[in-house]
Amino acid sequence: MSKRDTTTTEIKESPLFWPARIKGNAMLVLDETLIPQKLHYIKVKNTKEAVDVIRQMKTRAFGQFLVVMQTFLLEINNSKGLSQEALSEKLQKTAESLNKSRPTFPFEEVTSLVVKWARQAIEQNIDIRIFVPKCINGYLEGIRGRRLERVRKIAEVLKDGDSVLTHCNVSGELAMAARLAKQQSRHVHFFATETRPYFQGSKLTAWELQRMGADVTLIADNAVGSVMADKLINKVIVGSDRSCANGDFANKIGTYQIAVLADEFQIPFYVLTQPSDKIKTGKDIPVEIRNPQELLTYLKKKIVSGVVSGFYPGFDVVPHELVTEAIALDVRA
Amino acid sequence: MSKRDTTTTEIKESPLFWPARIKGNAMLVLDETLIPQKLHYIKVKNTKEAVDVIRQMKTRAFGQFLVVMQTFLLEINNSKGLSQEALSEKLQKTAESLNKSRPTFPFEEVTSLVVKWARQAIEQNIDIRIFVPKCINGYLEGIRGRRLERVRKIAEVLKDGDSVLTHCNVSGELAMAARLAKQQSRHVHFFATETRPYFQGSKLTAWELQRMGADVTLIADNAVGSVMADKLINKVIVGSDRSCANGDFANKIGTYQIAVLADEFQIPFYVLTQPSDKIKTGKDIPVEIRNPQELLTYLKKKIVSGVVSGFYPGFDVVPHELVTEAIALDVRA
Repeated sequence: MSKRDTTTTEIKESPLFWPARIKGNAMLVLDETLIPQKLHYIKVKNTKEAVDVIRQMKTRAFGQFLVVMQTFLLEINNSKGLSQEALSEKLQKTAESLNKSRPTFPFEEVTSLVVKWARQAIEQNIDIRIFVPKCINGYLEGIRGRRLERVRKIAEVLKDGDSVLTHCNVSGELAMAARLAKQQSRHVHFFATETRPYFQGSKLTAWELQRMGADVTLIADNAVGSVMADKLINKVIVGSDRSCANGDFANKIGTYQIAVLADEFQIPFYVLTQPSDKIKTGKDIPVEIRNPQELLTYLKKKIVSGVVSGFYPGFDVVPHELVTEAIALDVRA
Repeated sequence: MSKRDTTTTEIKESPLFWPARIKGNAMLVLDETLIPQKLHYIKVKNTKEAVDVIRQMKTRAFGQFLVVMQTFLLEINNSKGLSQEALSEKLQKTAESLNKSRPTFPFEEVTSLVVKWARQAIEQNIDIRIFVPKCINGYLEGIRGRRLERVRKIAEVLKDGDSVLTHCNVSGELAMAARLAKQQSRHVHFFATETRPYFQGSKLTAWELQRMGADVTLIADNAVGSVMADKLINKVIVGSDRSCANGDFANKIGTYQIAVLADEFQIPFYVLTQPSDKIKTGKDIPVEIRNPQELLTYLKKKIVSGVVSGFYPGFDVVPHELVTEAIALDVRA
């Protein structure tokens, strides 16, 4: 297949790619905690309900960010009688509530944009109700385009006969690239790790890969070394939660040891990144230590006996030396 | 502490060390599937019931072997009226039933000993009811002594201030060594992996380590690389299911990648072995591929959606180059 075909084939979206949308005066948010049992969208009507879906982790990763931005659209829709100043103040309060929803997430980086746009509208005497939604939608459409572009880049990495290991979940992009490669007659097999303790691999990645028509086999996180030693894998592709200026990145716990093993077996290791200069190196990323209860219980049943403690770092940091190629979100687009 | 103290301190046994015992005309077998919720012993009265507990994996590893040997004692106790010849024939049939209970396990290596002892008794005109139990009990006592000796060897490896990672479960020996080290005033911290898909680490190892008074922290299998990179581990100690003449060994899936990571971080890697010349190298060990349902469901609830397949190698093989020291069961004792 020529590069030209790759860039023109239409891409079918996975539900995890764009998991929240405005419909009428509500926002529909995909409840990721019910996947794979149900494909259910939660109806969110205001900031309070948006904060709830974020806090309860009904949506995660890119979905949280999407919910945050679209909550401003909801509030604008639901405030028909307000003056420009009152509406601007309301959006300021909305931003504050969203910023506080999960303290470890840098939502302020995007909510501050909306607050700035509202102020600009007042200064330039333009209707906030027209200007701010235009800015938000334009901003999101830009991201959508760059993410679709990255899907095409991933598809180009997928060669006929490849057997690709992935870990955790990359919010639709890998599954969409898998479909694109298949449409272009390249057969690729995927191995997904379970990704304990949350089972994102079992619940989300295996589900969306098979849903997009890809061949996928689930393995225990413990089987990574074994399948590599048996030459069942020839590429690794993972996502990243945070990227650093020097190429280091942080991702779901377990990514680091997969990178070390891939290096040991000389298996090319690819990572999807969002280039940023805000963090210099991996050493500057604070590692989130999560509640060990997530290790000690499953489906509300205790796995271990009472007095055992758990240690649950939520993610780990992969140094750039272990990365073969970063598949980056184009920040200039 | 001097070596003399190490060899004289009495060792408290963990229930997993010797999980089956004859009591009256029954055998009490620890139901490991109920740990850590319950410490329950199943009453086994005959060969059929013994085959059931083995098939249903109520006991595992050394426990299976113990059940096999003690089943002959049960059958001898329950056959008071039989002639020497009839009893010898009965033991032969018992051996055949046990051999068939789990085809992948080499039970014949030990059941053939019992059949041989029964024939010897007849040839030498000695009462089978006296001679065979003497042989079986002597044989088991020999193993018990060698295993207790290995516990002391493990304890000697445990130094004050150590932080030891372990994987899966080593049937009591590590927990007993931990207690011994503590009695000798050496403080050792343990990290136990969950050991998906069966959670032997969460259910058995964490439980028995804390029960024997050791400090233990549970981590996801995914966190091994991370805790090593953070210098939280200075030794790895694991068991082995099968040892080879060249020092390679097979153990629960995940052991291999832990060995590779330990090598990467120059962390000493110890393995408990049962030296054998029957298998030359790790390449001669057939890898058991288990039912992928064990990956796809948990507590009878499905984790993944319908059409995803799973691949579940039950164990992996560690080459001797990655082993710092084998803590061997003394075969000459």
